[in-house]
Amino acid sequence: MDPIINAVLKPKSIAVIGASTNPDKIGYKVVENLKNCGYQGAVYPINLEAHEIMGYKCYPSIKDVPYVVDAAVITVPAKIVPKVVQESGEKGVKGLSIISSGFSEVGDHALEDEVVRIAHEYGMRIIGPNIIGVLSNSDKMNASFTNFLPLEGKAALVSQSGALLIAMDAATYTRRVGFDKMISIGNQADLDFADLIAYLNEDENTSCITLYIEGIKDGPRFMEEARKCTKPIIALKAGTSAHGAAAAASHTGSLAGSAKVYEAAFEQAGVAQAEDLNDMFDTTLALSLQPTMKGDNLLIVTNGGGVGVLATDAAEKFGLPLKFAPEDVQAELRKHMPSFGSAKNPVDITGGAGLEGYYEGVKYSYAHPWVDGMVVLYCETSVTDPQEIAEAIYNAKNESGASGKPIAVSFIGGDRCEAAMKWLIEHDIPTYDAPDLAVKAMASLRKQDDMLKTAHNGLYKPTDVDSDLARKIIAGARAKGRDALTEVEAKNVFRAYGLPVTPTVLAHSEDEAVQLAEKIGFPVVMKIVSPDILHKSDAGAVKVNIKNEQGVRDAWKVIMENSLAYKADAEIDGVAVQEMAPWATEVIVGSVNDATFGPTVMFGLGGIFVEVMKDVTFKVAPIDEATALDMQSEIKSSKILEGARGESPRDQKALANVLAHYSFMVYDLKDEIAESDANPVIVYENGQGVAVVDARIILTKK
Amino acid sequence: MDPIINAVLKPKSIAVIGASTNPDKIGYKVVENLKNCGYQGAVYPINLEAHEIMGYKCYPSIKDVPYVVDAAVITVPAKIVPKVVQESGEKGVKGLSIISSGFSEVGDHALEDEVVRIAHEYGMRIIGPNIIGVLSNSDKMNASFTNFLPLEGKAALVSQSGALLIAMDAATYTRRVGFDKMISIGNQADLDFADLIAYLNEDENTSCITLYIEGIKDGPRFMEEARKCTKPIIALKAGTSAHGAAAAASHTGSLAGSAKVYEAAFEQAGVAQAEDLNDMFDTTLALSLQPTMKGDNLLIVTNGGGVGVLATDAAEKFGLPLKFAPEDVQAELRKHMPSFGSAKNPVDITGGAGLEGYYEGVKYSYAHPWVDGMVVLYCETSVTDPQEIAEAIYNAKNESGASGKPIAVSFIGGDRCEAAMKWLIEHDIPTYDAPDLAVKAMASLRKQDDMLKTAHNGLYKPTDVDSDLARKIIAGARAKGRDALTEVEAKNVFRAYGLPVTPTVLAHSEDEAVQLAEKIGFPVVMKIVSPDILHKSDAGAVKVNIKNEQGVRDAWKVIMENSLAYKADAEIDGVAVQEMAPWATEVIVGSVNDATFGPTVMFGLGGIFVEVMKDVTFKVAPIDEATALDMQSEIKSSKILEGARGESPRDQKALANVLAHYSFMVYDLKDEIAESDANPVIVYENGQGVAVVDARIILTKK
Repeated sequence: MDPIINAVLKPKSIAVIGASTNPDKIGYKVVENLKNCGYQGAVYPINLEAHEIMGYKCYPSIKDVPYVVDAAVITVPAKIVPKVVQESGEKGVKGLSIISSGFSEVGDHALEDEVVRIAHEYGMRIIGPNIIGVLSNSDKMNASFTNFLPLEGKAALVSQSGALLIAMDAATYTRRVGFDKMISIGNQADLDFADLIAYLNEDENTSCITLYIEGIKDGPRFMEEARKCTKPIIALKAGTSAHGAAAAASHTGSLAGSAKVYEAAFEQAGVAQAEDLNDMFDTTLALSLQPTMKGDNLLIVTNGGGVGVLATDAAEKFGLPLKFAPEDVQAELRKHMPSFGSAKNPVDITGGAGLEGYYEGVKYSYAHPWVDGMVVLYCETSVTDPQEIAEAIYNAKNESGASGKPIAVSFIGGDRCEAAMKWLIEHDIPTYDAPDLAVKAMASLRKQDDMLKTAHNGLYKPTDVDSDLARKIIAGARAKGRDALTEVEAKNVFRAYGLPVTPTVLAHSEDEAVQLAEKIGFPVVMKIVSPDILHKSDAGAVKVNIKNEQGVRDAWKVIMENSLAYKADAEIDGVAVQEMAPWATEVIVGSVNDATFGPTVMFGLGGIFVEVMKDVTFKVAPIDEATALDMQSEIKSSKILEGARGESPRDQKALANVLAHYSFMVYDLKDEIAESDANPVIVYENGQGVAVVDARIILTKK
Repeated sequence: MDPIINAVLKPKSIAVIGASTNPDKIGYKVVENLKNCGYQGAVYPINLEAHEIMGYKCYPSIKDVPYVVDAAVITVPAKIVPKVVQESGEKGVKGLSIISSGFSEVGDHALEDEVVRIAHEYGMRIIGPNIIGVLSNSDKMNASFTNFLPLEGKAALVSQSGALLIAMDAATYTRRVGFDKMISIGNQADLDFADLIAYLNEDENTSCITLYIEGIKDGPRFMEEARKCTKPIIALKAGTSAHGAAAAASHTGSLAGSAKVYEAAFEQAGVAQAEDLNDMFDTTLALSLQPTMKGDNLLIVTNGGGVGVLATDAAEKFGLPLKFAPEDVQAELRKHMPSFGSAKNPVDITGGAGLEGYYEGVKYSYAHPWVDGMVVLYCETSVTDPQEIAEAIYNAKNESGASGKPIAVSFIGGDRCEAAMKWLIEHDIPTYDAPDLAVKAMASLRKQDDMLKTAHNGLYKPTDVDSDLARKIIAGARAKGRDALTEVEAKNVFRAYGLPVTPTVLAHSEDEAVQLAEKIGFPVVMKIVSPDILHKSDAGAVKVNIKNEQGVRDAWKVIMENSLAYKADAEIDGVAVQEMAPWATEVIVGSVNDATFGPTVMFGLGGIFVEVMKDVTFKVAPIDEATALDMQSEIKSSKILEGARGESPRDQKALANVLAHYSFMVYDLKDEIAESDANPVIVYENGQGVAVVDARIILTKK
């Protein structure tokens, strides 16, 4: 655990720079909140004139404090911040929370940079600026200007929106989702989401990390820390729509990385993406209180057929479809329910089921080895007491003799249900007011189990690459003042990264073309190679299915004629001669550099699938072969690769190898390649491999 | 308004048959609830021995009651129900609520039929059996065994699940969604969803109708009444998953119509389908309190940038994407906000915005003619009072001078927000605890506006059809003992319904085939016509692109040879000779009879689109041309029809005409056609029409 970050988030002593005697000022509220919420460390209000605030002795400058100061909370106007940061450094303060606003969020990047520079000079780290503050229940520390600590719990919230943090702080009580910490992250001038994930992963009071994100500063570092984190991470990403991203940019100045790439990055790094604010709370409740679900067997117990059906629909919708319980589970359950109940799954113990029915049903089911997780539903009735049912569920689980399996509950009803649900949550059982939400919680616990298993793999790095050769080819093109490679160059770069490009060689004369074609073997394809002719087909400068020497000679003439007709002064390197790959299934592999996460891989089937159906999937590069296989099954047209309509299955393993190598290439050369694609890539049947038929590389501007 | 149904739902006097002196019995609870909830009509407990219950005089039989009895609520055991129904009929009772269970839901259909038969004999109508009862706030009538009336409001709930109704009754108070009526519909032995929609459409205390549905008995009648209904209808359909449908069937005995067809039927009949229980409540709140949204211009006003972004994302997600407000709206709004706010859309009046900011911002925006609907968001802050903000929003809207536009609100915060939200709902402003929910509510008000406009059209009926001819062809095939038509027969049926089938004629000899081919014009296609050979291509009994007389003669021989090789004793009618339609875009049109809604139309693009991508859409037949155009835009591959990849647009109007005529055919012949398709249908470019190349009809079993 980083001791400096610890000093900001868990300080033993706090100076409030800009502390005020005026109760309307933030500088007063912070001191008041520290006191009222019971902070046990020393508090040193810094104020030029006052002698004391809220009973704490004041000092005119932080340098006048005669004791060690761990953290300073700064509330002075933006323009004075550099001065007080300088003084804090000189005093030996370790960390700073800068509540003051008026920095990059209003366009003043220079002032923000200056503050960070001074802080780093003294080895200090900064949360902020432009924040609400930091709140921690386990330290009874409310170093913020919102009035109270959140409902006690095990989650930690890091929020990029201050207004939302204040509102969520209050909402924890009505929504009954408990947090140990709430951290306002503001402009992330220094400490960012990645730093806080690393810190909270080691914080003993945090069981799950919840993030409200408008923009991540360093995507790859975020992914790295998220991958290393062994606790569940939930992210609500705002600005996933075009208009929403613009709105987010206008109020925070965040870069608007592609929503699809964010989604991929979260998935790859094992971060659960919340759909909306309620989903963020609901998922946090489940992941902060329950163990992950280690298998697919979900059992639902209910006293109402209707909610049982709704829960069953939800199970399918959220990817955890119900199966009937095995006969022995059913036989045991039947002993504890009326004859008109159902022991299948959902298990309907019927409306008359009282605490005994729930106790026996839950106890037996929870303990049964077939069951990997349980959802218990209760509809309020006139003849049962919700509190009794809640206690029966809790006791049954505890007395079942089993443990380590997740459970989620839903009560539907009025005030009595609300009270019973509160009690269950206080006893660490996530409880929701609708059956589908309890099922969704269980689905997120199931998914979390998968993600924790796969996300920790290190970055993929193949050994069969010649990075130096590739860089030499690129340097050659740059030396000629070009920012795009020719097809032959691009293919050579691809080949250096282990990609199976079709043999393509550059002929400088008609005779050389004939020689080369005979060496490759007929039929061949011939294309113009010219930095001035990018759209070769449009120029009539591509000829396919050339079968013999005469064909090569004819093609040479036509290609030259057409090229010069297309652009009279075109610089012509020669004509590429390449093997004519037999036709099979066409796919497209491409890459762009995302503003947030860097190089990405795009994959889809060729033709209408990408162009019309937009059936593509993205990942952040690099990806390993397992992830490359996932990409192939993620597209809607995946059945084509698996062998649809009587075709044999395609060589998905070879394609995975290509995707992984390609991803490493764009990752390794991210400073050189701005954009590239392999289109088409021909995928043959199982065992027959893959051929990259065309390659394109656009270089970064340097 | 049906006076008999009115007598069940709004009786002036009620007999409780099976009234009990034992407070644990349902027969006691109903009497108690009628009294305690303040029912003003006469109550006659029927009990063999008691003199009075809860102060009401008892009678040994309903026939002993000396006054007029509008409705009887029956709670006696199932086997005695026929007897008391008989007595009720003799007494002249108009309507019955049969709470008693033990009928079709446990498999005893005969008993249920018997009860309905007796009731109808006396002109009585029945709600139930197997119900909780009927609750009505406007009549202070709780004729049920759940203890209290729901929170007062303007919606009506009809629920097929009793347990859920009891739970939802209680939940109306905690969720603040008000209902005037709650009706438990049980087994729908007599009155069903359609009857209640018709009734509630005329009920002055109902502004919106909410349905919890496990299975509809008569799909077409449900659609007819829903179409006629001028009030919003919201349906939560349980059992949309395969396992869920099985679970629903096992506890209610409902038929499991296809979830996709339910979805289509709801859309076609103007019913808003709720996604889940919370969505049902949320949508009911919006549709019961607010007018529909008549244009696409949604304006969002917020005090927090973060929730503004979340709401903007939601607007795109729910199909109501934000646009920037016009400059004059922005200019006016800027007067009422700090300089660092944003007057675009979302309008960010910033965290410091107090009641004045909200009042001025909402008042001006609501009145502006550009604005079609508003969402107002509020994040709790330390410096504002949620109740004051709530009142400012309410007053601003009322004092804006405008009306008839919908507004929805979201407050994020703690107890004070909860109280303010309650106040807003009590003042008819739907208010939610998350920004996306307020936006979703507005999207449902927008969609409702569309649906109310289009759903009321009558059933499509083209004039250019010869139904008699079609029935004659079918009768001919049946007379030969067949339950499938040959291709030539099927095409003739299609043609009788105005469908542009490619000219296809039956040749009985090689010479006749030559004659017919010359008449049609080359090239032609030839196919075997045999009731014994359904898979003609597999049998090698189809020849295409036949260009001249010799080709016809060769094809005749090969087809005959192959057919007899395929099935030596095949009955052969001859060989169909048809025009070879030039190739263009292939589509597939098909139909099956849904168990609930009857004949449907399925539509998709040919080849991989249907077979691999499952890119199809369904409607309940018949559909008009406008709906047929909707079908074409609903599929994911719709761009192909619009003219993708350099192709000219296809003749979508002609295709719509084909879909509409086809839909009328399967509707009109629903007793005859079990299943049919037109595959492929070739769609040419705009103005060039459509050709139905192959036709298949499977007849119903008779």
